[in-house]
Amino acid sequence: MTPYKALEQHFRQINDLAHVFAVLYWDEATMMPLGGGPARANAMAALAGILHQRRSAPEVGELLEGAGSSADDLSLWQKANLHQMQRAWVTSTALPRDLVTAMQLAATTCEQTWRACRPSEDWAAVLPKLETLFQLQREAAERLGEQQGLSPYDALLDAYEEGLRADFVDAMFADLKTFLPGFLEQVLERQAQRPPLPLPGPFPLDQQERLGRALVRTLGFDFEHGRMDVSHHPFCGGVPDDTRITTRYSDDDFLRALMGSLHETGHALYQQGLPAEWREQPVGEALGMAVHESQSLLMEMQVCRGRAFLNYAAGVVREAFGADAGDPVWSADNLHRHYTRVERGYIRVDADEVTYPLHIILRYEIEKQLFADQLTPKDLPEAWNEGMQKLLGLSTVGNLKDGVMQDVHWFGGLFGYFPSYTLGAITAAQLFATARSEVDGLYDSIEQGDFAPLVGWLRTKVHGQGSLMTADALVRSVTGRPLATEAFKSHLQARYLTA
Amino acid sequence: MTPYKALEQHFRQINDLAHVFAVLYWDEATMMPLGGGPARANAMAALAGILHQRRSAPEVGELLEGAGSSADDLSLWQKANLHQMQRAWVTSTALPRDLVTAMQLAATTCEQTWRACRPSEDWAAVLPKLETLFQLQREAAERLGEQQGLSPYDALLDAYEEGLRADFVDAMFADLKTFLPGFLEQVLERQAQRPPLPLPGPFPLDQQERLGRALVRTLGFDFEHGRMDVSHHPFCGGVPDDTRITTRYSDDDFLRALMGSLHETGHALYQQGLPAEWREQPVGEALGMAVHESQSLLMEMQVCRGRAFLNYAAGVVREAFGADAGDPVWSADNLHRHYTRVERGYIRVDADEVTYPLHIILRYEIEKQLFADQLTPKDLPEAWNEGMQKLLGLSTVGNLKDGVMQDVHWFGGLFGYFPSYTLGAITAAQLFATARSEVDGLYDSIEQGDFAPLVGWLRTKVHGQGSLMTADALVRSVTGRPLATEAFKSHLQARYLTA
Repeated sequence: MTPYKALEQHFRQINDLAHVFAVLYWDEATMMPLGGGPARANAMAALAGILHQRRSAPEVGELLEGAGSSADDLSLWQKANLHQMQRAWVTSTALPRDLVTAMQLAATTCEQTWRACRPSEDWAAVLPKLETLFQLQREAAERLGEQQGLSPYDALLDAYEEGLRADFVDAMFADLKTFLPGFLEQVLERQAQRPPLPLPGPFPLDQQERLGRALVRTLGFDFEHGRMDVSHHPFCGGVPDDTRITTRYSDDDFLRALMGSLHETGHALYQQGLPAEWREQPVGEALGMAVHESQSLLMEMQVCRGRAFLNYAAGVVREAFGADAGDPVWSADNLHRHYTRVERGYIRVDADEVTYPLHIILRYEIEKQLFADQLTPKDLPEAWNEGMQKLLGLSTVGNLKDGVMQDVHWFGGLFGYFPSYTLGAITAAQLFATARSEVDGLYDSIEQGDFAPLVGWLRTKVHGQGSLMTADALVRSVTGRPLATEAFKSHLQARYLTA
Repeated sequence: MTPYKALEQHFRQINDLAHVFAVLYWDEATMMPLGGGPARANAMAALAGILHQRRSAPEVGELLEGAGSSADDLSLWQKANLHQMQRAWVTSTALPRDLVTAMQLAATTCEQTWRACRPSEDWAAVLPKLETLFQLQREAAERLGEQQGLSPYDALLDAYEEGLRADFVDAMFADLKTFLPGFLEQVLERQAQRPPLPLPGPFPLDQQERLGRALVRTLGFDFEHGRMDVSHHPFCGGVPDDTRITTRYSDDDFLRALMGSLHETGHALYQQGLPAEWREQPVGEALGMAVHESQSLLMEMQVCRGRAFLNYAAGVVREAFGADAGDPVWSADNLHRHYTRVERGYIRVDADEVTYPLHIILRYEIEKQLFADQLTPKDLPEAWNEGMQKLLGLSTVGNLKDGVMQDVHWFGGLFGYFPSYTLGAITAAQLFATARSEVDGLYDSIEQGDFAPLVGWLRTKVHGQGSLMTADALVRSVTGRPLATEAFKSHLQARYLTA
């Protein structure tokens, strides 16, 4: 067996263990009874340790050397696969196994504590867990940075998207910080003249669920290879052959759960569309979190909050709730007003696409300060409040639930992940601008509830590419230019100030 | 660290991986979409391989030697723990890793195929998978037997309950084969005079589920540390801190699902009641499948199908379905008639306790022939039919769904497991006879829906003992005599010919 083939075999087993981990993670978030938490945290830490051991096994280093010296015989995909293996090897050997298992244990424990403490805003109970977790994360970031000649925070960014650096994010975000405040004022002024008509609830959960499933299916989600459930924090998990999205319902509002489901469906379509022949290899995995997020936001923001889709969806929505087609409350136009409503709010996941980047910039700036030792976890409520005041003019004093305790990310050990959301939104706008010019009759098909043309284009251009190239190269190759904020800003202007 | 302490640490990690495996297994049977099957089979096989590797690691052998030579310093529980570690080491080193992963892959694949093929009775499609699986199982049984000086089939029996041998099972079953046919005739004759009144359906599934949960809770199931879901074949899985029972509903009959849930609750109470301080060690695990089954059957057969419990449950049942308390159809007496109805039927899981052993004897005799090379998997439909004719007077020709394809066990690689059911029934009767004499006012408390006295007794006498002693020793210690069929036969006589 050639060294390359031996590596493929080794990484197939790593893929199997990553599958196991994905199921455990999903189960923990959706199914596990509270009392199962501590034992589960141990089990997940043990599994993380074994995964790490496989990734960093000494024989992998030897095989990589052997495969590298005969790389000329490899195909393009094989070369890219080898590169991804190399990357996994470098980042895993940077961390000692004890640190990896301690981080996993701390992350699961802290996330479980967060879930229990958020409703009662018990910051004091979760803070020590967060401090432990952050300290471990920082040690890991330092080690990863050292190994790769990066700052600790850049090392984290790189883990979520190869090649991403704070300098690049800074430039993008500076541009949005200049553009958004004035733009937001204009939008708010314009929208004040035509508020949406309130939708009359309650909306029974079983009707909401049927509606959600119907539209998720319309977008192309494959229920033969996936599930849809309820969780505390919506996410898309599982594996390509068994992709699991979650949502959360509330009976006084169906709009949020529905759009949340369509957002996660964007992630799921990416995962289900990864290249079948490379499914068990690193090159067959999703490219990175910014591209992943571009797929959810392309569906949610570019498509599903747009007029063409809502013209279709309004009928499905009316049918789900037994509403009258002639009632203006249930019209596509009114749904569109709701779904393009811009408001300064507390909650990131409920934010509109205009204010959303401000929520991200807040978190990004805090993260940079945390990893530059300018902040510690105990300073977070105050830093959060200051940032919210500055960026959105809202006070979160005495409102931790909708402040620093709103997102699972930090409590689950995901530092350096947040920028992906806004990079994803920017990428989504740029990709969708290209899709509009390349796919004939795109809006017509969407208006008919036919997503095949759009998803087909995404399958070829994005999903099916796996990790063949970097995100930067993918965006250049599909759209003909490097990632920039122009398409995103044009989209916002067209939707919020022109339409 | 002493060799014993090092072993505890090693086995704690094995316990973590077994936890992971339990979640994967549960998810596969309850949650996984069909299309996720092949990838999942690979993932479970990889995990089984790692578990095996940990169990059979050379350092374990060395540590066991070291710990064995200083065993005098160990406590009783530690000694028993060391014995269980030794047992795990012997049985795992008997099997090469490739065989273990191949068996796991074949088992998951065959079980998935069985699930798909059973409704259409597509024996031809599942047979090749079963043949592959059986061949691997036989190789494993031979290797296990060789290592321990046992016949292949005895090696399998031993894997499900330490010390169990076919000779012992033969003697028990011979006694029942003598007793049951004549007894069955007497019961059928007696019951013909007072058939139960039919219960008027349909029974909406949500009402059935609420009823099931209420009574499962009454028995003592801890929903903080467990779940209840639906699966193709009811089972109890998960881990002590997160115990998962499943059931299956049908809207024309609630009696079956309800009693199935109470049966699984018996398993769950055992699992949730295993000794907390030994939870992560082999000695803290359940004793074996016969004792496990004794706990489900003690709840189902000894208690829940008896008058005291049904006097309580009848009110809960009526409330669940909005039935009239004065209606004789919904009386405790009529429920009792249903729940003690004896009939020659096709389906083991639906069988009453009188005919149930005959279903088990059929499977046991076939298994012995399979492992003695007197039968091969392709002969199963014919052998099944012959056995059913002989033991229950029923033909299963052209009825594979309710014949050889009814049970998951063989298709999931569980050979040697079936005898546990009837040994469990015998054990349950003997244990419950002792409970009646030792727990004051036992029936009165059950009649009030108060299971604390019974469960408290079981916690002390059985659950909390973990694997401290063998099943044989446990039965002797609790009941004062070795396992025998007397209590079981007395119970049947009292319930079916006297009451």
